[in-house]
Parts: sequence; C-alpha cells; structure tokens
Amino acid sequence: MTAVRSTDFTEETSAQVVADSFGATTDPRLRRLMVSLVQHLHAFVRDVEPTEAEWQHAVDFLTDVGHACDATRQEFVLLSDVLGVSMLVDAINHRKPAGATESTVLGPFHMVESPPRELGADIALDRNGPPCVLAGHVRAADGTALPGAQVDVWQANGAGFYDVQQPDIQPERNLRGLFTADEQGRYWLRTVVPRHYPIPSDGPVGRLLAATGRHPYRPAHIHVIGSAAGHAPVTTHVFVAGSPYLGSDTVFGVKGSLVRPVTTVDDPERAARYGVENPFRLIEFDVVLAS
Amino acid sequence: MTAVRSTDFTEETSAQVVADSFGATTDPRLRRLMVSLVQHLHAFVRDVEPTEAEWQHAVDFLTDVGHACDATRQEFVLLSDVLGVSMLVDAINHRKPAGATESTVLGPFHMVESPPRELGADIALDRNGPPCVLAGHVRAADGTALPGAQVDVWQANGAGFYDVQQPDIQPERNLRGLFTADEQGRYWLRTVVPRHYPIPSDGPVGRLLAATGRHPYRPAHIHVIGSAAGHAPVTTHVFVAGSPYLGSDTVFGVKGSLVRPVTTVDDPERAARYGVENPFRLIEFDVVLAS
Repeated sequence: MTAVRSTDFTEETSAQVVADSFGATTDPRLRRLMVSLVQHLHAFVRDVEPTEAEWQHAVDFLTDVGHACDATRQEFVLLSDVLGVSMLVDAINHRKPAGATESTVLGPFHMVESPPRELGADIALDRNGPPCVLAGHVRAADGTALPGAQVDVWQANGAGFYDVQQPDIQPERNLRGLFTADEQGRYWLRTVVPRHYPIPSDGPVGRLLAATGRHPYRPAHIHVIGSAAGHAPVTTHVFVAGSPYLGSDTVFGVKGSLVRPVTTVDDPERAARYGVENPFRLIEFDVVLAS
Repeated sequence: MTAVRSTDFTEETSAQVVADSFGATTDPRLRRLMVSLVQHLHAFVRDVEPTEAEWQHAVDFLTDVGHACDATRQEFVLLSDVLGVSMLVDAINHRKPAGATESTVLGPFHMVESPPRELGADIALDRNGPPCVLAGHVRAADGTALPGAQVDVWQANGAGFYDVQQPDIQPERNLRGLFTADEQGRYWLRTVVPRHYPIPSDGPVGRLLAATGRHPYRPAHIHVIGSAAGHAPVTTHVFVAGSPYLGSDTVFGVKGSLVRPVTTVDDPERAARYGVENPFRLIEFDVVLAS
C-alpha cells in the first residue's frame, strides 16, 4: 500500500495526502478518477475557503437533491445539466468530424421507446400546437445517401409537456415516432411546432436557479437520434429559430449548427407529397452521420 | 444580465459559458462560489474525460448517498470526511497560532449535550474498557492558567460505539461530560481507554472505501472541546498513542501534536487525589486556547 501520511494533513498537503489514500485501488481507472476528483475538489475548497456554515449548506443542498430523486425524477441529472456538466460529457464523448451533425444531450424524456411509424405519419396525436412538417435527408459525411437509416423523433407538445409528464392528458406515445428513411435516404413526418418549456423547477435545482438569477427554460426543440449501419449514431436536437431562450438554454444544449427556421411553403405538389394542405409549415433538418 | 453565449459551448469554452450564466447572481458570495465550482468541476471532467457510463455511475452514486441520509445518518458528511474535505474546511476555519492546541473535526456524535459533571467524575457509566484517568491544564497561549474554563468530553466505549449508536445497550449520556476547570485551570475525570472503530460502512461511502482498497477505521480517540471567556474555543481529539490506524485515519483527523500515550502511574498520593486505585492508567492532555 502506498504510504499514508495523514498526520501530515495541512491546507497545503491535503490533496496529496487524500490522493495517496487511494493508492491501493486495484482498478487503475477508478484510482485515476478518485485522485483527480480529490485534487480538483480540494483546489475548489482552497479557492473559496468556505465557512463551516457554507459547508453545512452544501451538505444540506446535496441531501435535498438526493431526496428529490425517485423513480420518475432525477434531480442529480438536472443539477449536472444546469452546471453544463452533461453537455461537457456529451461533447467529450461525441467529437464529430467536420460536416457531421453535432450532438446534444439525450435529456430525461426518452424513457419510452418511440413506436415505428410510416413516413409521413402525424405524431401529434393530440394536435396541440401549430401543424408542421419535419423533413430531411440522412446521409454520410461524404454526401452518400443512407437508405434505410433510422430517425427517432420525440418532442413536447404546444403546451411544453412530453407525453410521459401528462399521462392522464396526452395520448400514449404522443409526439414520438421511429421512422425509416426511403431508398433515397429521405424522411418526412407531420408534427407540431414545439414550444419552449421549463425544466422541473419545484425542487432544489429550481431553487438554485432562482437564487442565482437564472431562468429554468429550454428553447423550443425536437429530439432526433439518427442511425445507420456502419455509421456512428447521433443524438441531437433541432432547435426552432426565433424561439425564446435560444441564447440562454438552461442546460446549454444549443449549438448554432442545429437551429432551423420554420418556413411557410406554398407548393401544392410538395404539400400533396407530404399529405398536408397547401400552404404548410416546414422544418428541414438533414442528419449527417460520421462513419 | 451578463451575456450568455450558450451557442458557443465547446469543450474549451464550457466553463466560461456556464460561469457567465451565473453573472446575474445578486449575492456576490454565492456568485463567487458558483463560478469557482463550475471552473473546478469542468476542469475535473476535462481531466478525466468520463464515459457516459461513468457519468451515469457518478449520478447513481450521489443518488444513493442522498437516499442513505435520514434523521440519524448523514452520508454526505461521511463522503466529505473520507475525501478529506471536512478536515480541509476545519483547517481553513481554525488556523491556530503556534502553541495553541490544534483542531480536528467535530464528527457526527456530538448530537446530544454533554451533562455537567464534577471534576473527577467517572463518565464510563457502562465500565466497558480499561479504566483510565484523563487530566490536564487549560491555559492561554502565553501560559496563563484559565480557571473556570470548560472542557466538553465525549468518546466511544471499549467496544467502539457511542451511546447514541446503542441506545438500547448503553446508559444515556454514557461517556459524555462537561467539566469546569478548577482555580488553577486543571481538569481531571475518570473514563476508559477508547478503542479504534469503523465509520458506518454499510452504505455507499462504505462501498466506495471497499472498492478503493481503503479501510473504514478511525484510530482510538477522545473528543474534546475546550473553551474559556475571551479565548477562541477549540474542537479537537486526543488520540491514543499506539492505536491501530493512527497513520491512516479514514477521515484524516490525526495531527501529530494530538497523540498522547496511556501511561501507567504508580503514585499513591496522586491516585488518592483522582479517587482511583494505585497504580492507574493516565492520559495527560493540556488544552491551550488562542485569545
């Protein structure tokens, strides 16, 4: 076992003494994680020099976050989200070559599987929101179309809620669909324009946001997972151009490359192809997968 | 409000983007705490580059720690203890001038008030352990005796448990006493030699210690709070020389200046003064308070 010298514990040596205590960890990855955690945590404490009352407040806050977690709510994920940690972990794990669709967080609402649906199906079973078409191509970074690619889509309704948040109000699997691109790699479906909405803000994370002058909102978006054999899948969002909070998403999920306008299209032939009345609203979003 | 530029969120800019989101915090101390937390937390994540599975594991661990907290157990304090954070916060908040008794952590077992007792009283109501005398002087850093100083003492019994851990076995307020120093600043009491013991290890913190090859033990010690009017109180321990785990206290509480031997004294006059049979065991511990 590595020498432990806890009697040398001082403000200056604390991180090294505690890091040394993890020297007997047989799993090298766990050892590296704990040593780095200790070094950064002690550097934080030395930087801010918390009073004992502040330390107790932090303990109480983390305890409240833990107690707010249950089978349907994960307050520590919310905390990770509003501190930008979820997006940073996402960025680290999904470095994309130039040209590929950028990723963003999965979020907590992909808890049920999206039902397979035919191209062109309307996923807005409750028709709550302005109707629109979502359409695009799935292709490889070199431009090759990816026939048979899968596009998994889910979103909140025009009131800002997901089906799983309103099981007594929304139809089951409302605003969810798993689509298969056609022989030219195209996908299209009918939905409603999503609306911005707040993350759950009635718990300790909501209190933290309030105490720090931050709002709890996410800008309007549609979740997309694109996947195709032989390519890296991408978990991302399409953000609606002009939505409130695009510049201040409380979970830091927005990337400029993922913002798309809702256009109004006057094209009877295309309206007929999508099975909608002319003119119609359209969001176009191509999914480009890295190999 | 400070400019929020969440669309610029990258691995490189993440800490700054999230720190900026706290720019509207009106309490300057809270703003400083959050900005520093974000910078150190993101630096940690960038350093170790956790996989998404590791991030999920961390979320699950913190959730388990939260769920282990209840009215009589504070698992986040245990986590802070075994990561050396509690001792670091203690060191920062109790910088002592040279010569004053060094501080160590309060610990979780001072949850009931120690009963006032006469000098010489035996606090070992269950007589579980080798009898011994604890005695010393309370004085100022310049050597002046502090008559009327208070010495609050509590400890585990010879089996390694505090009274509050065994309410059905130990007498109420066993091994606790609040003593008042005599006109020469002296205090003395009868007790038992304490034993090393494990911190509660049946929860997530215990699992962390096991996974990292660390033991859950604290070396044998007696808790002391010394206080006197016009002086800074000190919360500390007397550690028993020769105890197992003196070099590897799982909460890093040991300081070399706080270790004292248990001596065997053959002195009939002194034995009579303490009200014990000759020869007797003695731990001598002077408490020196900064002004």
